[in-house]
Amino acid sequence: MGSPQGRIPELRKDSVTNRWVIFSPARAKRPSDFKSKSPTTTQTQQQQDCPFCLGHEHQCAPEIFRVPPSSGPHWKIRVIENLYPALSRTLADPSAQYPILNPNPNPNPNPNPNPGSGVKVLGGFGFHDVVIETPVHSVQLSDLSPQEVGEVLLAYKKRIEQLSTHDSIKFVQVFKNHGASAGASMSHSHSQIIALPVVPANVSARLDSMNGFFHETGKCSICEVGVEDLLIDESTHFFAIVPFAATFPFEIWIIPRHHSSHFHELDGAKIIPQLTVVAGFEIGTGCHINPVFPEDAAKVLREVQNS
Amino acid sequence: MGSPQGRIPELRKDSVTNRWVIFSPARAKRPSDFKSKSPTTTQTQQQQDCPFCLGHEHQCAPEIFRVPPSSGPHWKIRVIENLYPALSRTLADPSAQYPILNPNPNPNPNPNPNPGSGVKVLGGFGFHDVVIETPVHSVQLSDLSPQEVGEVLLAYKKRIEQLSTHDSIKFVQVFKNHGASAGASMSHSHSQIIALPVVPANVSARLDSMNGFFHETGKCSICEVGVEDLLIDESTHFFAIVPFAATFPFEIWIIPRHHSSHFHELDGAKIIPQLTVVAGFEIGTGCHINPVFPEDAAKVLREVQNS
Ligand SMILES: Nc1ncnc2c1ncn2[C@@H]1O[C@H](COP(=O)(O)OP(=O)(O)O[C@H]2O[C@H](CO)[C@@H](O)[C@H](O)[C@H]2O)[C@@H](O)[C@H]1O
Ligand SMILES: Nc1ncnc2c1ncn2[C@@H]1O[C@H](COP(=O)(O)OP(=O)(O)O[C@H]2O[C@H](CO)[C@@H](O)[C@H](O)[C@H]2O)[C@@H](O)[C@H]1O
Repeated sequence: MGSPQGRIPELRKDSVTNRWVIFSPARAKRPSDFKSKSPTTTQTQQQQDCPFCLGHEHQCAPEIFRVPPSSGPHWKIRVIENLYPALSRTLADPSAQYPILNPNPNPNPNPNPNPGSGVKVLGGFGFHDVVIETPVHSVQLSDLSPQEVGEVLLAYKKRIEQLSTHDSIKFVQVFKNHGASAGASMSHSHSQIIALPVVPANVSARLDSMNGFFHETGKCSICEVGVEDLLIDESTHFFAIVPFAATFPFEIWIIPRHHSSHFHELDGAKIIPQLTVVAGFEIGTGCHINPVFPEDAAKVLREVQNS
Repeated sequence: MGSPQGRIPELRKDSVTNRWVIFSPARAKRPSDFKSKSPTTTQTQQQQDCPFCLGHEHQCAPEIFRVPPSSGPHWKIRVIENLYPALSRTLADPSAQYPILNPNPNPNPNPNPNPGSGVKVLGGFGFHDVVIETPVHSVQLSDLSPQEVGEVLLAYKKRIEQLSTHDSIKFVQVFKNHGASAGASMSHSHSQIIALPVVPANVSARLDSMNGFFHETGKCSICEVGVEDLLIDESTHFFAIVPFAATFPFEIWIIPRHHSSHFHELDGAKIIPQLTVVAGFEIGTGCHINPVFPEDAAKVLREVQNS
């Protein structure tokens, strides 16, 4: 086995938890402009070093597209490759190059177990992009006008449409880490898009659960949670709630009124403030402890927006 | 609805994710001797304030038992109630007092969905204990002799046996948070035991997955992952590995050679160093990104113990 540096990413399925895990040694090397900065580092210095800022395009991994789509220097949004990707876009179709080991495990009991035969491996094929939401270091997503935020959402939509043309891509996740305590390593406003060759177990469990609920009750389980106590805000096309069994304090779901199963046809979004620590109990059981009742969180959030 | 202070804990099942979440306002009030200590706080001062230290027993919630089981002042281990429990041990049997709402949801499609009808709630019945592993503030679990560590494990066993006599307790989790970065709020060496009235979805998924694997292959999926590359150490009764699809860097599983499904008959343990941050992608998908290949982690861990 090679050194971690030289190794390509790999997806492994744990036969005990039945979950896929992405192994990606390259990720360990990504920089952070939050960590280990001396307290005297100024905003200007941070900006001078930031590859996501206007004029620093050459410090980034290749661009996929920009908005507006001109070649001039005045872009508003850039969608680029992640320089330290969790998955590799240059591997060929995974089912061809890296067959799943033991797709049909021997159905006969074997008194001498052959160690390792229970494992599934997939080459780490997939896409990992960064969406730079503004050319200006000091601007956050919340500083943008509603129209500009709309342009960011349309950039996600365009990229998801491109990714979904790949037969071997089975799932695309758009996510945004805001601030160091949420795990972000870069302070310049951005989000990320990861396209996977598998559907994560959580996602299929969620779909199965919603499907089961619909078959049992004829209703949509997301519509069903929208009780008045939990409502934060609503508009013509969307409503925002604290979910009835919120996993995290002040968790927010933004739900479209129109039913749709894909984000690029406008699915919901989740906003999860990282105020609590996921520790031993949550890791062991997957069952979370939330100190804030959802109806209390919704009340606070309604008051915040009215003040 | 009352104020968060006055409210008893509640378990709610999210019909979208199909997971139980514990709501426990009392948890928000628990103290921490890691956070907001001034840098001049000395070990001695910390010790003077610590309710888990010898002589401070009166600052703790009631004791369940001590080891050795005398009433004298010289205990080695104390199992006590958690003063800020996630669940309430004084509620009666949950199925009697807090019926699951809509156990048989209306199977007919309803054109006017009644908001909130898709939710399941259970009174927050359960047990939440703390195991104080040593009377001395400065002693960590790793400072104890193998025999003393054995006594801690036997205290877990005894408490699990007590808890399992309750009909409505369906699952018991023993866990230990070591250090502030792992989420611990108290520095005095301790672990916790939570007994739940439900089986968490992750746990039943794990059991289903292992069951399925056994039925397909006639083998135990845990035995199957024990390939040589992943082995860290072994003894007569146990072996320690980095799991083939480890979710976290340097994750360790300690597995008994003897097959058993319950911890109090000596099940496995997991040790999960919190070196990475669980951020947007992991929360969204449940699929984790691990920068360290398990065979590399196992190599490092083998070398550590030989040095
Ligand atoms: N010059 C350059 N060109 C292109 N891309 C560049 C670049 N310099 C840095 N990058 C990339 O920019 C991204 C910034 O992303 P974030 O700040 O949202 O969090 P990150 O992905 O580091 O990790 C957080 O999110 C992930 C996923 O949820 C968690 O696994 C992890 O623990 C958590 O810290 C990084 O992925 C980095 O690789
Ligand atoms: N005088 C006293 N008598 C009795 N008990 C006392 C006490 N003073 C404090 N306690 C209890 O002692 C426990 C110490 O536990 P830990 O330090 O392992 O982490 P904690 O449970 O706070 O939270 C971590 O673990 C949980 C569960 O994984 C996560 O939900 C959480 O986010 C994470 O920070 C606390 O639960 C506290 O309620």
